Amino acid sequence: MKPALDPAFAHARLDSLLDAIPLTRAMQIALRGYDGDTLTLAAPLAPNVNDKGCAFGGSLAGLATLAGWGLVALKLASRNIACDIYVQDSTIRYLAPVWGELSALARLAEGESWDAFLAALAERGRARLRVDCRVPLADGKDACTLDSRFVAIRGAK
Amino acid sequence: MKPALDPAFAHARLDSLLDAIPLTRAMQIALRGYDGDTLTLAAPLAPNVNDKGCAFGGSLAGLATLAGWGLVALKLASRNIACDIYVQDSTIRYLAPVWGELSALARLAEGESWDAFLAALAERGRARLRVDCRVPLADGKDACTLDSRFVAIRGAK
Repeated sequence: MKPALDPAFAHARLDSLLDAIPLTRAMQIALRGYDGDTLTLAAPLAPNVNDKGCAFGGSLAGLATLAGWGLVALKLASRNIACDIYVQDSTIRYLAPVWGELSALARLAEGESWDAFLAALAERGRARLRVDCRVPLADGKDACTLDSRFVAIRGAK
Repeated sequence: MKPALDPAFAHARLDSLLDAIPLTRAMQIALRGYDGDTLTLAAPLAPNVNDKGCAFGGSLAGLATLAGWGLVALKLASRNIACDIYVQDSTIRYLAPVWGELSALARLAEGESWDAFLAALAERGRARLRVDCRVPLADGKDACTLDSRFVAIRGAK
């Protein structure tokens, strides 16, 4: 296994990916952390608030989906593999309102492996994998969980 | 059954609901149609584009979730029932990319009824129901489907 992306490079790489998506600027999404296995994105409440004063469900879904997508994008960037990455489906559960900053932590779903994903991608030019995301509250409980499936298609970019 | 909301009133009511959610302005979401049973929202591609030049998954999820939420909100507004409405869970399937305007049509899921929902709300002060949303393409196929469950809680607003 190669080492994880250098943090400064991960930051620059993700910023350039997010910059191509205007809504991420409106949401003020920022990279909070990346260690090769977990990606954390965050966004302030104000631009993501709903009519009740807590986080808008669409913002939570968007942030968590982007965290999952970014996890796959950074892994492929660290291997210099040019791919388009699409989300295929997601199930999101809204468990508790978020009254402050939004953050989303993405990691591979149980039973998934980067090695298998990268091997499938090398062999067939496309590969799928599931990513689990959670939006934690200050007390450690989850405000929201997102289970998503992504597909990467080689050579598109 | 009372008649559907007057279109001009529906427009004003939904605009005031959406105005409280800053991201809907960033997405430039507009009411396209409402007949009491189906709500259609639309948004231009430019503010909702992704890194590949088609619609960002987070925008599709947000637009479809809002269409479902708005369908419930307008029904309750037409009955003068003050409620907070929350999305509880959603499953979204991304079937094809959207290269132009985004639109989302929301209607009750099969097996759901407004009468049962309103009766439960009157009796228990809260009620749940499922809403189906689709994002159609010009050829009539679906670019995206969203199956969501909402809960309404009386008296909160």
